[in-house]
Amino acid sequence: MSLRTSKIQLKIPSGCDGAVLVKNLYLSIDPFILALMKNQELDLPSFTLDSPIYGFGVSKVLDSSHPNFKTGELVWGFTGWEEYSLIKDPDQLFKVQDKDLPLSYYTGILGEFLEPLGETVYVSAASGAVGQLVGQFAKIAGCYVVGSAGSKEKSAFALLKVDLLENKFGFDEAFNYKEEQDYNAALKRYFPDGIDIYFDNVGGKMLEAVLNNMRLNGSVALCGMISQYNSLEQPEGVCNLINAIVKRVRMEGFFTSDHYHLYSKFLEMVVPLIKEERITYVEDTAEGIESAPGALFGLYSGRNVGKLLVVVARE
Amino acid sequence: MSLRTSKIQLKIPSGCDGAVLVKNLYLSIDPFILALMKNQELDLPSFTLDSPIYGFGVSKVLDSSHPNFKTGELVWGFTGWEEYSLIKDPDQLFKVQDKDLPLSYYTGILGEFLEPLGETVYVSAASGAVGQLVGQFAKIAGCYVVGSAGSKEKSAFALLKVDLLENKFGFDEAFNYKEEQDYNAALKRYFPDGIDIYFDNVGGKMLEAVLNNMRLNGSVALCGMISQYNSLEQPEGVCNLINAIVKRVRMEGFFTSDHYHLYSKFLEMVVPLIKEERITYVEDTAEGIESAPGALFGLYSGRNVGKLLVVVARE
Repeated sequence: MSLRTSKIQLKIPSGCDGAVLVKNLYLSIDPFILALMKNQELDLPSFTLDSPIYGFGVSKVLDSSHPNFKTGELVWGFTGWEEYSLIKDPDQLFKVQDKDLPLSYYTGILGEFLEPLGETVYVSAASGAVGQLVGQFAKIAGCYVVGSAGSKEKSAFALLKVDLLENKFGFDEAFNYKEEQDYNAALKRYFPDGIDIYFDNVGGKMLEAVLNNMRLNGSVALCGMISQYNSLEQPEGVCNLINAIVKRVRMEGFFTSDHYHLYSKFLEMVVPLIKEERITYVEDTAEGIESAPGALFGLYSGRNVGKLLVVVARE
Repeated sequence: MSLRTSKIQLKIPSGCDGAVLVKNLYLSIDPFILALMKNQELDLPSFTLDSPIYGFGVSKVLDSSHPNFKTGELVWGFTGWEEYSLIKDPDQLFKVQDKDLPLSYYTGILGEFLEPLGETVYVSAASGAVGQLVGQFAKIAGCYVVGSAGSKEKSAFALLKVDLLENKFGFDEAFNYKEEQDYNAALKRYFPDGIDIYFDNVGGKMLEAVLNNMRLNGSVALCGMISQYNSLEQPEGVCNLINAIVKRVRMEGFFTSDHYHLYSKFLEMVVPLIKEERITYVEDTAEGIESAPGALFGLYSGRNVGKLLVVVARE
């Protein structure tokens, strides 16, 4: 990645009907970005060399030729990793609805969805952007919740994360997966009667260990597989899918974008939780667009706590 | 396995209230039997050394101390691989309801369930007991159906199976997986626009290739993983589960026993199909209980066509 500077007109060029020109304020640093970079023959648009990376962000409309968006409005959705972006197809751009909340929240908490079901819940990467919320929502739904977290380097950081899960987010138990020789044994310790729901953010060997410990009719929400996006030459195989038959487990992948129709319902649920401080939302911010590459690579080493984002501009 | 003979009284012993004594007529030879033998730390009852193997069968009640079963009745369900079995807990024993049909059918066709959804369907082990029916049901539901079959030895057998799929069962396309160097390429050839439903009977590398070729919002019914029960020291890993996220695929394991409440509904659907010959059901029978071990091992080499069963006695 390199940072490039050039001059642009802060006006929509002619011939770009329906486009929106935005000033980017906050950019979300997400694990899926490396997956897109690696272009692993997935059916996803991959990044184009010499073009800006894109992802979720919060932006302000500077100019609009689209009837739904007006100059001065705050929006969130897909934008570029740049100070200003011309968004030609603003279909996946949403208006910021509740201005009482920190704007940066729209890169994270206000862009996630979850349906809690079952009794015992395990969340991996539980101190991350998504995991922290999943676990807290599951606690509010009355579940027994265990989370794992860690970081590549043995550090006070991992301790901090585990402490956060237990003492800030109110998980029932938490562990540092880096200190476990045997994930299987660790899960048996925390779930002697098995796991009803696994919210998977990591994939690979952890998913394999979870399948050994699932309860009958359990479910696995496949949200991310950060352990597999990294520098592994060959992704790790999951060798025990037979458990999904024996235990009648449902595994299902999802994108938040499949559930945008539920967004207003979700806001109704989550905004009061935030305002009443029944949810703790931790952000980890890097300042300036030039900090984006470092922040992204920090993410894969577990050097973030909570939702990682870049502050491009505050207003 | 060894065949043992001993003399028993054809009467329920005292102290066995609620038991049923049956004469076994037909025994079903199923892939799951090897999985239970291997005792792969799955949450399943495994076989006990020096005891008979058990599985699905069709039997005749000789003596009963259970209020639901009477002497002379024909039943199907879990029984032992023996001429006569004392079934202490007949909860999973069902009465043969339609006597116009061949009795042996109750080891197979009348014990399976399926909900067809979607447009393009791929069935592996498609000439087997379950696969032959799944494919035909999917055709009746209006789907485009492709099946694969094969056998360990290069033989006329594999040709016969593929021919059967296309010409007897009415699949749209069929292929011998043993002749494909690259499962991925084979699936792309038959499903240029992807697979909506995969009915998985084999697991392993075929499942991996399918995941590469799934359509958005597709589903995978995990019925069996015969490629993994066999002599592999270490089961094959599925390295590309990331596709389940990217394509929002739902994968779900099931046992027919979870769906017994639908059994009468299923009979209403399937009995007319059999009588009107809209379904072709192929059976592969071995005669005599002494042929059971050979039949079981033939199954893992692909030496069966259709539903494999042992005829212990005809009445």
